[in-house]
Amino acid sequence: MRLGLLATALGGGLFMAFAAARADEGMWTFNHFPAAKIQETYGFEPSPQWLDHLRMASLRLPRGCSAAFVSPTGLVQTNHHCARDCLQQLSSPARDLVQEGFYAARQEDEVKCPDVEANQLVGITDVTPQVREAVAGREGTDYGRALREVLAKLQRDCAGGDEAIRCDVVELYRGGVYDVYKYRRYQDVRLVFAPEEDIAFFGGDPDNFEFPRYDLDIAFLRVYDGTGAPLNTQATYFAYAPREAREGELVFTSGNPGTTERLDTVAELEYDRDVVLPESLVYLAELRGLLLQFSAEGAEHARVAFAKLFAVENAYKARLGQFRALVNPGLIDGHRRAENELRAKVAADPQVQQRFGDPWAAIAQAVAHYRAVADRMEVVEEGRGPQSDLFAYARLLVRAAEQRQLPDIKRFQEFTEAGFPFTRQRLLANTPISADLEKVLLRAWLVQLRRVLGPDDPLVRDVLGAQTADRMASDLVDRTRLADPAERKRLLAGGIEAIKNSHDPLIRFAQEVDKQALAIRRDVEVNVEAVERRNAGAIAQVLFAAKGTDAYPDATFSPRVSYGIVKGYEENGRPVRYYTTMGEAYGRATGAKPLALPPSWLRARSAVDPLRKLNMVSTNDIVRGNSGSPVINTDGQLVGIIFDGNSQSLGGDFGFDEATNRAVWVSVGAVKEALANIYGTTRLSRELGL
Amino acid sequence: MRLGLLATALGGGLFMAFAAARADEGMWTFNHFPAAKIQETYGFEPSPQWLDHLRMASLRLPRGCSAAFVSPTGLVQTNHHCARDCLQQLSSPARDLVQEGFYAARQEDEVKCPDVEANQLVGITDVTPQVREAVAGREGTDYGRALREVLAKLQRDCAGGDEAIRCDVVELYRGGVYDVYKYRRYQDVRLVFAPEEDIAFFGGDPDNFEFPRYDLDIAFLRVYDGTGAPLNTQATYFAYAPREAREGELVFTSGNPGTTERLDTVAELEYDRDVVLPESLVYLAELRGLLLQFSAEGAEHARVAFAKLFAVENAYKARLGQFRALVNPGLIDGHRRAENELRAKVAADPQVQQRFGDPWAAIAQAVAHYRAVADRMEVVEEGRGPQSDLFAYARLLVRAAEQRQLPDIKRFQEFTEAGFPFTRQRLLANTPISADLEKVLLRAWLVQLRRVLGPDDPLVRDVLGAQTADRMASDLVDRTRLADPAERKRLLAGGIEAIKNSHDPLIRFAQEVDKQALAIRRDVEVNVEAVERRNAGAIAQVLFAAKGTDAYPDATFSPRVSYGIVKGYEENGRPVRYYTTMGEAYGRATGAKPLALPPSWLRARSAVDPLRKLNMVSTNDIVRGNSGSPVINTDGQLVGIIFDGNSQSLGGDFGFDEATNRAVWVSVGAVKEALANIYGTTRLSRELGL
Repeated sequence: MRLGLLATALGGGLFMAFAAARADEGMWTFNHFPAAKIQETYGFEPSPQWLDHLRMASLRLPRGCSAAFVSPTGLVQTNHHCARDCLQQLSSPARDLVQEGFYAARQEDEVKCPDVEANQLVGITDVTPQVREAVAGREGTDYGRALREVLAKLQRDCAGGDEAIRCDVVELYRGGVYDVYKYRRYQDVRLVFAPEEDIAFFGGDPDNFEFPRYDLDIAFLRVYDGTGAPLNTQATYFAYAPREAREGELVFTSGNPGTTERLDTVAELEYDRDVVLPESLVYLAELRGLLLQFSAEGAEHARVAFAKLFAVENAYKARLGQFRALVNPGLIDGHRRAENELRAKVAADPQVQQRFGDPWAAIAQAVAHYRAVADRMEVVEEGRGPQSDLFAYARLLVRAAEQRQLPDIKRFQEFTEAGFPFTRQRLLANTPISADLEKVLLRAWLVQLRRVLGPDDPLVRDVLGAQTADRMASDLVDRTRLADPAERKRLLAGGIEAIKNSHDPLIRFAQEVDKQALAIRRDVEVNVEAVERRNAGAIAQVLFAAKGTDAYPDATFSPRVSYGIVKGYEENGRPVRYYTTMGEAYGRATGAKPLALPPSWLRARSAVDPLRKLNMVSTNDIVRGNSGSPVINTDGQLVGIIFDGNSQSLGGDFGFDEATNRAVWVSVGAVKEALANIYGTTRLSRELGL
Repeated sequence: MRLGLLATALGGGLFMAFAAARADEGMWTFNHFPAAKIQETYGFEPSPQWLDHLRMASLRLPRGCSAAFVSPTGLVQTNHHCARDCLQQLSSPARDLVQEGFYAARQEDEVKCPDVEANQLVGITDVTPQVREAVAGREGTDYGRALREVLAKLQRDCAGGDEAIRCDVVELYRGGVYDVYKYRRYQDVRLVFAPEEDIAFFGGDPDNFEFPRYDLDIAFLRVYDGTGAPLNTQATYFAYAPREAREGELVFTSGNPGTTERLDTVAELEYDRDVVLPESLVYLAELRGLLLQFSAEGAEHARVAFAKLFAVENAYKARLGQFRALVNPGLIDGHRRAENELRAKVAADPQVQQRFGDPWAAIAQAVAHYRAVADRMEVVEEGRGPQSDLFAYARLLVRAAEQRQLPDIKRFQEFTEAGFPFTRQRLLANTPISADLEKVLLRAWLVQLRRVLGPDDPLVRDVLGAQTADRMASDLVDRTRLADPAERKRLLAGGIEAIKNSHDPLIRFAQEVDKQALAIRRDVEVNVEAVERRNAGAIAQVLFAAKGTDAYPDATFSPRVSYGIVKGYEENGRPVRYYTTMGEAYGRATGAKPLALPPSWLRARSAVDPLRKLNMVSTNDIVRGNSGSPVINTDGQLVGIIFDGNSQSLGGDFGFDEATNRAVWVSVGAVKEALANIYGTTRLSRELGL
């Protein structure tokens, strides 16, 4: 189970992950990489140096994407949809960079993205013993607090007060292993090139998560160093491969898969199926309806809502695939068989039983507890909470003021010394705010608050008592000054006193809501999350004892490597070829969205090689968060950029089926072709060595 | 399983329905009423005359509601929400009858509702032997055709060509019994009185399906006879009871519960849980988002979308309750145990097995077949189809032209001699059309069509190829002439030739869509519906053999009687009183929707008895379709009008739990009080004998 909406919800057989992973399955950590197994299967053994290079040339974009250095001077390649927030923030009513694309013909034309951070993994340290020691013998509230404190301390010690370093403790195998991941943090990231939305997302929402596919979903950014110069990445970048990947070729991908739940218990999976996913789906569907109608009201509304609508539609379709995987009765039945087998092992060994008790039952109880409070938690705290940016600012400011007074180890993650630079960047970024859109989103949330909590709930009565949701949302947005970054800076700098003295209505409102939100968050931390962690950790130890640790942990939005081969598949009995071509994109275009090609493509048609491969699929095991991941051949050269999985791969949260699950990527051949013959980006092409 | 969205989807234990129903459970037919059991439990035995009076004073409103005669001169009482379509159709930008209410101070002020029909059940005939004979030995297509033909013939024979008579064959026990229900049909129904929306639906969507509740959800209509005079109902009406109902009092309700699935197989219930309900919920949620935003665009948009938004929110909340009931693992497990027991009985008896085979497996196969085609069926034919009124007209006209050429017994139900008068009334009614709203609904459907079928589907390519959904919807709505009832009348009268020669773009478009729609509908009729019917009928016969017929059938939107007592219940450990008062409504009002009382109520506050009971609950077993049902005491007098069930009752599609399931109704005492002291409706109060 994952709480809320932003964290996601989906896992095959318990055994798939823990027994020796089959075939190309697995999202492997850099420090436990199955190099020997790959040698055995494919005749190529990645050396430690090869892996170090892979790690150092790869990047995490903490909003949920991956990326890679692709030149000696800090050039970064990722997906268009991973740069979409930046493109939208840099747009104006006069110039819509999302739709029109962007190209900095000169280096000085590169524009800073307001709130992009990039992380480069520079080290991993196992801290499991320290964590075990800190929580030994503790239960309930006490366990949760001790765990939080030791994690905060480990992160702080690792970073040593250097804001250019970010350290995250990563909980692997659901608490079986704790590692500290040390990243170099880059916050000066600038926009270099993006194609037009019409080709980056050709086929639109109907084609999302489908294959065959015809998208140039790429963007180039550049990391600058502390002196304002392009970062020197001489030693740590992927060169473009001189030839495109071939059918059957072994390829690797290095990225940050978000979350999987392949190790979840049956109680958690059933909760996902029965509650989390359906409730998320209806929440997202309503939001989609709102945003579609808002966008239909005019071009400017369509422009300002674009990135949000994409995010909602993308999340909706991903969750629908996950839900459909989970209602397939075979899936949960498989987990149940594996779980029963393990439970029987524990039951048969009094010593093991004495040590661990019945962690499955304990987790089921935690799930039941959550079930009773989930609606309130999700609507006031996270998951189905307000989508309004202004409200998010207000809440962050209110919390920062309180949290920053506490000792570091007592704070929520986003306010610790380790987490705060990213929070502050977000708070102070000069990003445009659409008052119209803010009103719609805030109103929708107020309506939902009343719907979920009921008109007689004290918060609803206090907040909405004698006002309509419509009036209240309008008042708040019209009267707050938080759209101004200077005001946010002032409030942040002023700390608790500034917040206390603020008459900003949105600050007052956020304080009101936060009283409830913090109470419910604390309840969930103690009675749900701590219980799940403690007991999932116990299950992991039982599993290690039974089956060894020669397997990969669930995805945790931290760097992982997967391997696979370039390969088609079968769907409804007919073969699906492993690639599509640029010529086919032309053939499929109708001239109307979502099948309209941009003018640049139409103009260049005769210059484009129609047989050039555009998108490819491979058996690499990926999920959301892998967007923008580099695809690498055995020479360590870039052959593609992942931008999607096929619809079959959406069940990947719960397991992996090599027969049909595929990663979908843009082939570097198409990037070369487009840059040279469609966009004429000489400076960029030269830098890429094309 | 029910197909699509409009038909609903929810059932407790198989045994609950078939074993002697427990306690007050049951939606009983008039011809198999458990009078002796009631005598035994409550000491009152409804006589045949008492039941005849109940039947003749009750009405069905075929759009999904119930009603009753309440005066000797054709006065009808139902819910405000059952008259909402009429109120909206009679409104204009200048005068919003939904919000403002309506009162005809003189008889000549009563206004005809454009498309309301009322049905009065005058006779029931068992035709099971004729049906069995007609389908004996048939399978597949052949079975489906034979069944349709014999049903059409029986209906036609019953009505004898008299349009004032409507005959429906009602399939009871899922095909165990076939009865012909003969109704008197009234199509001249006029509006007499409705209160304001703010009190009819006080608490709005958040309070819908909740109790305690504070709604005056009533409306008065009047049936006129063929001569244009009020219908003489001297012998067939319910007098208002002189005193309100008391706690513990035995009460009856006579109405038309829509659908229940208490006899469905496990395969069907799982399909509902995994597919039908979640897919309906997300469809409705998106529609809600669209309509909420459309309504926020201005007062006139809010007005024209009001009835549709209510319908969508109401359906959404009902389905959410059904879904939550179904994911409760106990529910389906209970059905499974009962089903396994019955299957074991069949397996143990070679003769029975020889006769029936394995009907459960056959139904599971039909469900699997439907699963594969459901998306297409529902998006092009029904369920998640277009919500546009103009498109509905176009499709009805196209189909009517083709179908009316066929022999009566070959037509779809809505085009048979028996069904057509209602269809025609709907087609020709002079109801206002909002072009803005039509465009939104049509666009949403086109977007969904592409999303579900994919951009490469031939229909999508033909229909949407080089246009955006937005442009296409606008063009169709701007260019069609079907908003004009005279044009619809002309096309209907002109038959197949008029349709062939029509250049109306919406007619052309409907023809295009209908090619696919009819093909898929035929496939589903043959491979799903016919299989389910045949095998559900077989299961019913097994059940009759095992347990007798002393039980009620699933609801089929035909007249039923349920009995129960006025009684509170417990919720989360605290008692819920059986009534609310008018004074409490005043106390709860905040002045802002959805807790705003209308000006009439605010003005009259000092004149209103605060202790007057407003809403009451009783243990009567009801579901959707029972809205507007009269609640009757043992003297046959009216004590209330049902308008809702509590949230616990939403699982009623699958079973009945007397501990918490409650019917919610307006007490007649509150109606008297409001008419006398708030609305001053002297003429109406006098007619009611108050």
